Amino acid sequence: MDQSQNPLSLVTSVRVMFYDTDCAGVVHNVAYLRIIEYARTLLAEKLGWKLTDLPETGITPAVVRTEINYRRPGRIGDTLVISAEITSIERSRFWCDFQIHRESDQELLTTCRQSLALVDIHSMRPVRLPADWATKFPSLFQKQPTS
Amino acid sequence: MDQSQNPLSLVTSVRVMFYDTDCAGVVHNVAYLRIIEYARTLLAEKLGWKLTDLPETGITPAVVRTEINYRRPGRIGDTLVISAEITSIERSRFWCDFQIHRESDQELLTTCRQSLALVDIHSMRPVRLPADWATKFPSLFQKQPTS
Amino acid sequence: MDQSQNPLSLVTSVRVMFYDTDCAGVVHNVAYLRIIEYARTLLAEKLGWKLTDLPETGITPAVVRTEINYRRPGRIGDTLVISAEITSIERSRFWCDFQIHRESDQELLTTCRQSLALVDIHSMRPVRLPADWATKFPSLFQKQPTS
Amino acid sequence: MDQSQNPLSLVTSVRVMFYDTDCAGVVHNVAYLRIIEYARTLLAEKLGWKLTDLPETGITPAVVRTEINYRRPGRIGDTLVISAEITSIERSRFWCDFQIHRESDQELLTTCRQSLALVDIHSMRPVRLPADWATKFPSLFQKQPTS
Repeated sequence: MDQSQNPLSLVTSVRVMFYDTDCAGVVHNVAYLRIIEYARTLLAEKLGWKLTDLPETGITPAVVRTEINYRRPGRIGDTLVISAEITSIERSRFWCDFQIHRESDQELLTTCRQSLALVDIHSMRPVRLPADWATKFPSLFQKQPTS
Repeated sequence: MDQSQNPLSLVTSVRVMFYDTDCAGVVHNVAYLRIIEYARTLLAEKLGWKLTDLPETGITPAVVRTEINYRRPGRIGDTLVISAEITSIERSRFWCDFQIHRESDQELLTTCRQSLALVDIHSMRPVRLPADWATKFPSLFQKQPTS
Repeated sequence: MDQSQNPLSLVTSVRVMFYDTDCAGVVHNVAYLRIIEYARTLLAEKLGWKLTDLPETGITPAVVRTEINYRRPGRIGDTLVISAEITSIERSRFWCDFQIHRESDQELLTTCRQSLALVDIHSMRPVRLPADWATKFPSLFQKQPTS
Repeated sequence: MDQSQNPLSLVTSVRVMFYDTDCAGVVHNVAYLRIIEYARTLLAEKLGWKLTDLPETGITPAVVRTEINYRRPGRIGDTLVISAEITSIERSRFWCDFQIHRESDQELLTTCRQSLALVDIHSMRPVRLPADWATKFPSLFQKQPTS
């Protein structure tokens, strides 16, 4: 799918800072999860869950499951390009795919897949996804998640 | 398996600090990965890869894949009990299972599974697992990883 | 002052993990602040502000100012010994000194000084220190903070 | 000084993400240090110490001392505007001032001052500042640091 046309996708980038690296000289495995949260938050805002609305609505996507593969090491100073895309939607959860490439040589460093649920942060209870998603994104809604 | 008897397992605990939590009032999803690294590092030391030997040997287990499920929220002040266990071994990789319970009510908060490879941190290249693992842990070695 | 006798002091230790280090091969400057928070939280609990009481009381010490000096680099696997001590008390603030030594060679790596205020986390407003501190710790209470 | 004209200054901004906050509902005190590192790294690159040159040169500014004041709490979704400026230069160290404002209401949240030394990350030894700094920035060079 051409992500630039898909309202359920987003591409952004970050630079690798010292705080992202460890003494093996590479981006630390945990740092990628923070970088993915950054991209995921921008995507969530694009879909209407703005961080600045959170005090009023109390509703935000929360991670239920993460699968992440570390393929190649990132290094200090690298520009990481993160592609995020919603790939399937259930009644109260959806799945997001992430790919992180190094900009300079287009090397694929990390792939990740997350299942997210909408939650009310006051009760930490799940909330139904927007009712119009089924009609707006029928192809995604039909797909059953693979795990 | 009784983990206390299994040389390839370990139980440890940490307290949830402010730096582990986020503004939803719960342990942040990324913080669990740091907590799991803590348990994994202690297990790796028990198996002979001591952090203090690292400058000399340059060999350490590195994460290749992480799967983590967030089941129940942890809270500030909770004591988290982390169980770590190696569940299968391949020629150059092994799988580790983690379970994080809250001590006070034995609630299972998080389950995680990681695939690790031994790497030389100078070259970031994989290194063979110890040759005697096949004979020392035949039952684990026979198992094929499920993904 | 002999810290073991001082109710307003505490000594604890942590191991340096990969997540504490950066690609310069040393403990990252920001990681020390997390390590100091760990020691500070234990000291706060010793003084009666237990993390597990927080949902009920809503009161916890919060950092108002930090001064930290980086003297020698810590390394992966080092055991860091953190000494924490309250050194002066004002009406609504107090100062805490921290020293971080490497256990193996007693090298002093980092010194830190923090000013803390008691806050109500619901309102984020300052709260008076316990009234009996002036009588219980007169020598500390007389001292005026130096900045 | 008009920072936009000062080659030794920089203004940048970041959004507050969940990973920056804690269960008091505010930006965690340690998170500001990571945000300040981000601004400081961009300023260092502007001055010629590019992260991508680091593997070749091995030279980077390292923090020797940090002083930070927490004045007002930042919140999830806030856009934080970080101003960074070099304020005085010694033979082998320099001081940097940081101010963090919330964009929406221009509230000053945090002020920080850091002393930095150039270090060779292979030896972790200090390196002389560029010889031409004394002639290029005479006003800063004359100033003696105040602590």
